[in-house]
Formats: sequence, structure tokens, C-alpha cells
Amino acid sequence: MDKKALVVLSGGQDSTTCLFWAIDKFGKENVSAVGFDYGQRHRLELECAENIAKKAGVPYEIISTPIINQLSANSLTREDIPVEETKPEGTPPNTFVEGRNMLFLTYAAIYAKTHGMTDLVTGVCETDFSGYPDCRDIFIKSLNVTLNLAMDYNFCIHTPLMWITKAQTWAMADKLGVLDIIYNETLTCYNGVMGEGCGHCPACALRRRGYEEYMEMKKCTR
Amino acid sequence: MDKKALVVLSGGQDSTTCLFWAIDKFGKENVSAVGFDYGQRHRLELECAENIAKKAGVPYEIISTPIINQLSANSLTREDIPVEETKPEGTPPNTFVEGRNMLFLTYAAIYAKTHGMTDLVTGVCETDFSGYPDCRDIFIKSLNVTLNLAMDYNFCIHTPLMWITKAQTWAMADKLGVLDIIYNETLTCYNGVMGEGCGHCPACALRRRGYEEYMEMKKCTR
Repeated sequence: MDKKALVVLSGGQDSTTCLFWAIDKFGKENVSAVGFDYGQRHRLELECAENIAKKAGVPYEIISTPIINQLSANSLTREDIPVEETKPEGTPPNTFVEGRNMLFLTYAAIYAKTHGMTDLVTGVCETDFSGYPDCRDIFIKSLNVTLNLAMDYNFCIHTPLMWITKAQTWAMADKLGVLDIIYNETLTCYNGVMGEGCGHCPACALRRRGYEEYMEMKKCTR
Repeated sequence: MDKKALVVLSGGQDSTTCLFWAIDKFGKENVSAVGFDYGQRHRLELECAENIAKKAGVPYEIISTPIINQLSANSLTREDIPVEETKPEGTPPNTFVEGRNMLFLTYAAIYAKTHGMTDLVTGVCETDFSGYPDCRDIFIKSLNVTLNLAMDYNFCIHTPLMWITKAQTWAMADKLGVLDIIYNETLTCYNGVMGEGCGHCPACALRRRGYEEYMEMKKCTR
């Protein structure tokens, strides 16, 4: 029997690349996606994700999780706290929602098991590690064990972007034939501007730098 | 500085015993409790917990988490599925909410860190292990590591009942001077009857058997 995979899809560059990676690996008919509505600042994110899943031809379900706001408050979810554009070295940016990835992946795992899926795909990445402890590979591996013990099940968490740079993520999208979709229809920007973004928040800077680097690489290897 | 502890308090025998255990260990002024409203069949549970926390003199907060019902449905939360009174050996009873303890302890951990607490106390117990994989000691230890990695924090999960019998849990309550509160004001019964319970659901049977055993023990050691 084919393995069935669930992609955690936020509508950003990374998770969208992972969606197409999963379709390539598992076959479209074996891939589903979920997103989480936790009262994020930009609900456009969820619309992007929905639109992308539709184009990709995979089912997409939004799970509502207002509890994230109840547990700890910060700038990704609260309009009254401005996004920091610079931050002290080594501290997480104030967009950090404590334990968020852990909750999202746990929800995804419960959903996956309920629907007979074993494989979870997430776009977390240690290379652009910006102080989020729950993006680290060691955390993901530990979580995989904990989930398997919690539900007596053999989950397998895939992190195709864990050790690659943003430029390599663009290269992956290009290889998968979805560079245009990623470039134009994903939302990475902290200020909620789709595609190229606002151009000055940390997420836009990282994304643009990666894109330019990849375009340079491509020129050189032509 | 004193350690501060958070007790996951459902209003049942086990978590209530743990609350008084924590008060004894950490000092009342260092103990808080949380409960989870996940649309459980018996909301009386939350009222019991609130009442117990008030009597104990510790703060109690209810966190609302309807997501549990969204992710998987079963008899603890759905009125339309009857509680099984017998079940095949080795299978979890149909009161099982997949991954529930993992979610509750993760919520509790996020809440604890946000409030400067490091110690989590839960009434999970492997001795009366009835097919719930997320009540096992190995799961709790793995979760402790995962939480510490997820939030870069030194949580310590305490499970004072992990390896003791129900009779020994009654003995613990007696030693802590709270046998009466536990006997009369907790709700363990699957059918929602406080104190002595309905007398015939699996939870009532387990509780009564433990109580009688402890009373026998007490007679013999008098």
C-alpha cells in the first residue's frame, strides 16, 4: 500500500516548496495538506495556502486553534505589537510563538493518524535558524519519537529543507517546476505582502537574498 | 528562588491527589493549576476542579481547547457514542482521545513557561495502564526532553502516581490529610456522578476496588 503524507502548509515559500516535494515523492493522490488558523496577523496566509493546494490538486483543511493566543501573546498574532526589524543577536525575534511548531506538528500527527496517514512533511529549517528552538533538527527527531510513543504509531517526519539554504530552496522549486508559483503566490512577508513582499522585513530580506543567490548560481552553471 | 509548579487538574481522584502532593512539596504559594475545557461529556469535572482549587487555596485557570474535538472524535466528548463497559483485552477503551495527554502537557508547558514556572505535575499512572500509550513513563520522559528542546527550557515533569496502585493513591491522600476531599468532591466516574460515582463504569470499579484495598491495608496495619 502507498504511504500517505500530510503536509503542514502555511502558504509561505518553505511549506509550499515542501508540498511540491511531497507530491513528487509520494504521488499527488497520496498527499493532503493542513493549515492552522491561530488568529495570525495575516489571514491572507491561509487564502494563499488554500489557493496553492487547489492549484496543486490536493485536499486542504484549515484547523482552527485559537488556543495559541490564549497561551502566549506576541507580534505574529497581535495587531498591537509591532514587528521588530532588528533584534539583539541570538534572541528569537518577537514573532516567536512559544512551542508553536510543536503544537502544529502534534495536531498534524493526530489528524494524520485519524486519517490513516503516516508521513508528516514540514518546512522547518535549521540553516536559517533564527533563534527558534523548535526548528532545530534535534527537536524534530525528539518530537518524532515522542509522537510515536504518544500514539503507538510509526510516524515519519520529513524535513526536506532542514539543512539547505534559501538559495537551495529556490533551486528545489525550480527543479520541481514550480518556481513561478512559489515566486508569485506564496506569502512569506511579515507585513502581509504576497509574492515579492514588502522588501524590508527580515523574512523578505532572507527570501530575496536567497533568490538572488540562486539566480547567480544558475547563471554560472548555464 | 523557590521552584514554581503547575498541576494539570481535571477534578478526578488522581489529579486532585497530585495537587495536594504538589502543595506539600513546593508550598502552596508556589503552586497553580490549569484545567482544559475540550467539550468533555461532563462539564461538572471542571466545576469540581475549580471547587477543589479554591478549597486548596491555589489559582486555577481553565484553558479552552475545542480543537481536541476537531482532530478526533470519541465517547469522552461526544454524547452520541455510548461508554463501553467491557472491551477486548489490550485495546484502549473508547474513551480514548488520541494524543490528548500530549496536547494537555504541551499546553501546560507553554503556560508554565509564560508564567515563569518550571515544574509540571500530572496524575498519569502506568500501574492502571489501560491501553493509553500516552500514560506510559517512557512517553512522559520522551515528552520532557522534547518540551525542553522545543522551548529551550528546563521543564521537570513530575508523575507522583506513575508506579503506584489505586490503593496506594488513597494511602497518599490519607497521609496528606485530604482523604475526605478526594472521597467526596472529585469526579472520576465516566457517567458523571461525583464522589462515589455510578458504581459500575470501569473508572468507578477501579476507584472502589482501590479504596477497599486501602481500607483493608489500614485495618491490618493499625
